[in-house]
Amino acid sequence: MDTTTPRTHIVGAGLIGASLGIGLAAEGWDVTIEDADPDAQALARSIGAGGDLAGATPDLVIVAVPPSAAGRVVADSLTRWPTAVVTDVASVKAPIAEAADATGAGERYVGSHPMAGREVSGGLGAQGDLFKARPWVICPNGATAAAVDVVTRVPAALQCDVVTMEAHAHDAAVARVSHAPQVAASAVAAALGILDADDVSLAGQGLRDVTRIAASSPHMWADIARLNRAHLIETLDHIIDDLDEVREASDIGEAITDLIERGRFEVARIPGKHGGAKRDWLPVTVIVPDTPGQLLRLLAHTAEEGVNVEDIAIEHSPRQPVGLTTLYVLPSRAAHLAAALERHGWEIAAS
Amino acid sequence: MDTTTPRTHIVGAGLIGASLGIGLAAEGWDVTIEDADPDAQALARSIGAGGDLAGATPDLVIVAVPPSAAGRVVADSLTRWPTAVVTDVASVKAPIAEAADATGAGERYVGSHPMAGREVSGGLGAQGDLFKARPWVICPNGATAAAVDVVTRVPAALQCDVVTMEAHAHDAAVARVSHAPQVAASAVAAALGILDADDVSLAGQGLRDVTRIAASSPHMWADIARLNRAHLIETLDHIIDDLDEVREASDIGEAITDLIERGRFEVARIPGKHGGAKRDWLPVTVIVPDTPGQLLRLLAHTAEEGVNVEDIAIEHSPRQPVGLTTLYVLPSRAAHLAAALERHGWEIAAS
Repeated sequence: MDTTTPRTHIVGAGLIGASLGIGLAAEGWDVTIEDADPDAQALARSIGAGGDLAGATPDLVIVAVPPSAAGRVVADSLTRWPTAVVTDVASVKAPIAEAADATGAGERYVGSHPMAGREVSGGLGAQGDLFKARPWVICPNGATAAAVDVVTRVPAALQCDVVTMEAHAHDAAVARVSHAPQVAASAVAAALGILDADDVSLAGQGLRDVTRIAASSPHMWADIARLNRAHLIETLDHIIDDLDEVREASDIGEAITDLIERGRFEVARIPGKHGGAKRDWLPVTVIVPDTPGQLLRLLAHTAEEGVNVEDIAIEHSPRQPVGLTTLYVLPSRAAHLAAALERHGWEIAAS
Repeated sequence: MDTTTPRTHIVGAGLIGASLGIGLAAEGWDVTIEDADPDAQALARSIGAGGDLAGATPDLVIVAVPPSAAGRVVADSLTRWPTAVVTDVASVKAPIAEAADATGAGERYVGSHPMAGREVSGGLGAQGDLFKARPWVICPNGATAAAVDVVTRVPAALQCDVVTMEAHAHDAAVARVSHAPQVAASAVAAALGILDADDVSLAGQGLRDVTRIAASSPHMWADIARLNRAHLIETLDHIIDDLDEVREASDIGEAITDLIERGRFEVARIPGKHGGAKRDWLPVTVIVPDTPGQLLRLLAHTAEEGVNVEDIAIEHSPRQPVGLTTLYVLPSRAAHLAAALERHGWEIAAS
């Protein structure tokens, strides 16, 4: 593999394009950036996301435009720079690969999907670390091994977690792990519409968890749904069929038990720490006064006992000046921790 | 109101019955407890959940049996103790009220629904604080004011957050805030079934949040679904209709945008801190090495800066020895916190 870094040109200076520019420039790469919007382009250049290509020939072009425009801009870029390797960052991959193949230069196109943890937008928020420690999917499609190598150097430089997949498999997977869950969470939230404020106040941590992503803005979802329509509908059909089975069952209890059992089995496959299956951590729930520094005190006492906290959930009580903080710990440590925290004066609500 | 505490008898020595017994006894109440299972009864008595009624006459009977048996045991109790006020703790209320009314003694029955934060079971885990700072719904139905007063003293003694509702309104509300979200989360999880392990590893925090309650055991859900069938089906219909609209739309993008907008509006109504609408906290995401004490260091640095942490999310990276910890803080403090943590040597992944 070539050890010099590829001369890299980024098309699109939104949050993702500008963040990639800043991140790669910080690693010493020669980066240029352009945007159809002169203001966005000037802003990106001013914050160090890349310089002016000025007629030079890039080795690598990263297309970072909205998903609906990605196919067209990838095809244009393959034509405009006939020796460059081209990648893009859209969250749906097969339609972009088709657009690249249609130019006859598909061997120079490699799909990328850097997965940021939460939705963000706008060049002003750009930062080089946006994708660090996150999965970055590479879809080689019909690309040459050399083209794949060049594109893979981007997530490697940014310390991402590289995952190689076929484009259709990627699109089918993100429909199930990301696009359909968003739609279902929104539908659960929308069903609260008939409730008055007192009724909604019965909400517990379960509803808050299920609907957390329903609070995200619809920005980009229309594009994503249009591009991944077939896989999304296939997944929604699966979900609708399961819900229909419950509503039409002669014994709704039996149908619910069956669905919950199947769901449990699948949830256990979602990776937790370090790629292992999710461990069965035990919760220790503590009543924490809602004053500054209390959470810190709680964790200090936990650390004193040598117990590692695997996860935390904080639940604010609607009408009381206390919150419930749940510490998830290894099963072998839960009873010890609960007893120790009580000795430190904490009130344990459940463990 | 009478200031002496009611002589209280608990029927059912599972987790909830035994926890109520321990909690009330700790407040100085005269508590007795019985269970059809002699082992469960002996265990509950041995851990201080109550003594032997031994033919005495209770002022208050708390029925804490599985939901499917609650109606029958409430009716039996109204007959067995013709001067006692009777309540129960099932999570569906209208069918129990109907069973009470059918005895002709409905004026001595008041429904209760103490809402524990997460599913738990078994008398051995019993503790007096199980429901502290949680909502406790009271459904007066046709009860006398005196009967309502007696029952309300239980959540008051246990420092619960008392909410008074009509039984059908309660059942309609819990279908939307609890029962249907559980079913939908299980259906989203079940749809992961066709994916292989690599595909599932693309799961981000969004899927983990949506499916967290899908990991809970089906214990009791069959009973609850049978008792609250009509409200649950009405809610599932609402969700299915919304999903159908998306799958059948001529423009799926427009349909998704509409659904997400409606869902967002409702999520904003879920109460957060102190009963206010959820604030728009801003996330500051930090890369945290997965070694003991790091979370504590992070929160210590945050406290040093005088920034209060409103919520925390911890995301473990599947293939790397680091995790991403997101601190949610007031919008006015986010930029300051991110800059300060960087000065303390933390790597900020996004803010």
